[in-house]
Amino acid sequence: MAPKTKTEEKATLPKGYRAAGAAAGLKASGKPDMAMLFSDTPAVVAGCFTTNQVQAATVRLDRERVEKYGIAHGVVVNSGQANACTGARGLRDAKAMAAEMAGHLGVAPETVLVASTGRIGVPLRMDLVVPGIETLAGALSPDGGEDFAQGILTTDTRPKRFTAVFRAGGKTCRLTGIAKGAGMIQPCMGTMLAFLATDAAVTGQRVLRAALLDAVADSFNRVSVDGDRSTNDTVLLFANGAAGGAPISPRHPDWPAFAGALREVTLQLARAMARDGEGASKMVTVRVTGARSTADADAAARAVANSLLVKTSWVGTFPNWGRVMDALGYSPARVREDKVDIFYDRVQAVRGGIAVPVAPGKLEKILGGREFTLECRLNLGKGEAVIYTCDCTEEYVVINKD
Amino acid sequence: MAPKTKTEEKATLPKGYRAAGAAAGLKASGKPDMAMLFSDTPAVVAGCFTTNQVQAATVRLDRERVEKYGIAHGVVVNSGQANACTGARGLRDAKAMAAEMAGHLGVAPETVLVASTGRIGVPLRMDLVVPGIETLAGALSPDGGEDFAQGILTTDTRPKRFTAVFRAGGKTCRLTGIAKGAGMIQPCMGTMLAFLATDAAVTGQRVLRAALLDAVADSFNRVSVDGDRSTNDTVLLFANGAAGGAPISPRHPDWPAFAGALREVTLQLARAMARDGEGASKMVTVRVTGARSTADADAAARAVANSLLVKTSWVGTFPNWGRVMDALGYSPARVREDKVDIFYDRVQAVRGGIAVPVAPGKLEKILGGREFTLECRLNLGKGEAVIYTCDCTEEYVVINKD
Repeated sequence: MAPKTKTEEKATLPKGYRAAGAAAGLKASGKPDMAMLFSDTPAVVAGCFTTNQVQAATVRLDRERVEKYGIAHGVVVNSGQANACTGARGLRDAKAMAAEMAGHLGVAPETVLVASTGRIGVPLRMDLVVPGIETLAGALSPDGGEDFAQGILTTDTRPKRFTAVFRAGGKTCRLTGIAKGAGMIQPCMGTMLAFLATDAAVTGQRVLRAALLDAVADSFNRVSVDGDRSTNDTVLLFANGAAGGAPISPRHPDWPAFAGALREVTLQLARAMARDGEGASKMVTVRVTGARSTADADAAARAVANSLLVKTSWVGTFPNWGRVMDALGYSPARVREDKVDIFYDRVQAVRGGIAVPVAPGKLEKILGGREFTLECRLNLGKGEAVIYTCDCTEEYVVINKD
Repeated sequence: MAPKTKTEEKATLPKGYRAAGAAAGLKASGKPDMAMLFSDTPAVVAGCFTTNQVQAATVRLDRERVEKYGIAHGVVVNSGQANACTGARGLRDAKAMAAEMAGHLGVAPETVLVASTGRIGVPLRMDLVVPGIETLAGALSPDGGEDFAQGILTTDTRPKRFTAVFRAGGKTCRLTGIAKGAGMIQPCMGTMLAFLATDAAVTGQRVLRAALLDAVADSFNRVSVDGDRSTNDTVLLFANGAAGGAPISPRHPDWPAFAGALREVTLQLARAMARDGEGASKMVTVRVTGARSTADADAAARAVANSLLVKTSWVGTFPNWGRVMDALGYSPARVREDKVDIFYDRVQAVRGGIAVPVAPGKLEKILGGREFTLECRLNLGKGEAVIYTCDCTEEYVVINKD
């Protein structure tokens, strides 16, 4: 492992990339609803998509293109309509979006990818999307990262973008990640979109993909807002080599610096998603240790993080650990009630399955903060897992009821 | 199958039973919080308990007694504290509750069962429970069914009780079921308590238990309010034979009448629980048909019924079937997007995975009612399953956040 990479909370694009965001009228609010990222030279590309059996047209198109060509010039994104459950028309619309962008930028249509997020089951408003793409193509700029970050948001309350700087192949390189999260976020990714761009050069798609899957496993796949998994989840990673460095592979001494930057940026984005979960008032890191296996730790952590009773209890400040015990008990993980220890941050609330006396107000103060860690020690083995999640407030229901 | 049994929404106790409810001060509100059911003669008893690995002291005690003795005189119930995660003290308290009731009524302590519901992890207030038991024992009455139904409620907004009349062994018999539900209700039972009493005579515990498990599988185990499964779920069925009829077994011609009454009463109680889910404004029957197997149908129906995004969308009247497609897609069941049909009551909204034109307002009218059925036809086989559930309103969060 490389030393931990520092990230800046900015969308400073790496060399050779331009981006833009625009309001194309897809959102009734008039807020930005489209975005475009473009690499002047073809970039090696890797992707990671939803595992839902119901998949958006954009996901199907991207998956095919990423696998078939392994390189891409960029991506165009819309919010407002998900282009999922839209049948043959949806696939035609997705292809038309890519072709439209490709036409404006003079590249092959197959080198353009697409992503959509929004309501499922309604056709894309192509009468608005097509002019939107023209606007975006004209507005592309090396400073357009922030506009891109705004353009992909839906119910997010703030943009999510981080940039890391590292040395690779003899040059200073950047890796920028921009994402949206908020709702329909669960274990195997929710309606989350994340776009990662680096100007490092890599030796090929295979190694890029392996690095992406590793990073996603420990970041986006560790987030759970509401246990729902979307039809549209997409993570794309572009590497265009525009920093001018020699191409690197996992055997290169600079690879850990690149992989570390990728891990750190995806982790920061993932935590930002949990923090900005729909209606969330606080972020909670659920850590399960001492499970019989990693799979058991993961199952137990997800049961706690997805329990509606646990999540609603976090809205207040009372440490309702009985609900945590309950969720551990019905999780598929092996749990022995009389072995369980529970800590809030580092304060122990439960020992051997029953209450530990805690000074009044101590736990309430921890639960009253914007972030805390809930650790459940099962004391049955060495399995560990972490899930980043948030509380479930009335606001979540208000956002989703219409 | 016997002809469908008619039930009355009343707690008219069968012969030989007495019951009572009381306010023992366990609830700050001063509402009834304890209840007692007693059969003057020892009744054959069968039980069905939570599958959570974390189990209340009351569940452990009842399970042992029901299995070991097979007969019981009755049960004493408290709300306010769950007596779960209370260690050795919890088991002592549960035994003391039973002994206290037994002492007042002159029966062996082992013939008394106990049930608790409320906050996990805090010890029972025995200083209030003990006098409460004395009050209950003094108040026992053949007309006490309604008081019992009130005494076991927690966040329920109304009592849940149904009585069926049937002929068995040459006599008119009754079967009365009284339950509480509301929150922490999921597939394998939530903090639900249900007490069933009949004056029919059965030949023994084995046949009674088989009938109970059958009935529970199609009723309480079909309810899901929030996907949480409690530490305290308990269903007890007493059969005291006080109607004076000859004992019946599954080979007796009257068995279907008894089994039918049991099925109908448990089904009505289960539906009443879904209808009265915490904060619920409407009840929804999720029916999945055409799955590759019954297990697939069950998994798909549960994914839909437990999806927070689906449940919050039901608060309004917009048929957000895209979220239903999404939940079907991430369920463990095999789903082919282009085969899925979706109906609200009998109005088709989706055919082959995409929208069907529906007259404006038609679906909204169905979703605006107090009850509707959502049917998902997967068109892949013959598997079918039903889950009774409800919407998730802001009120659910308000109830559970403190």
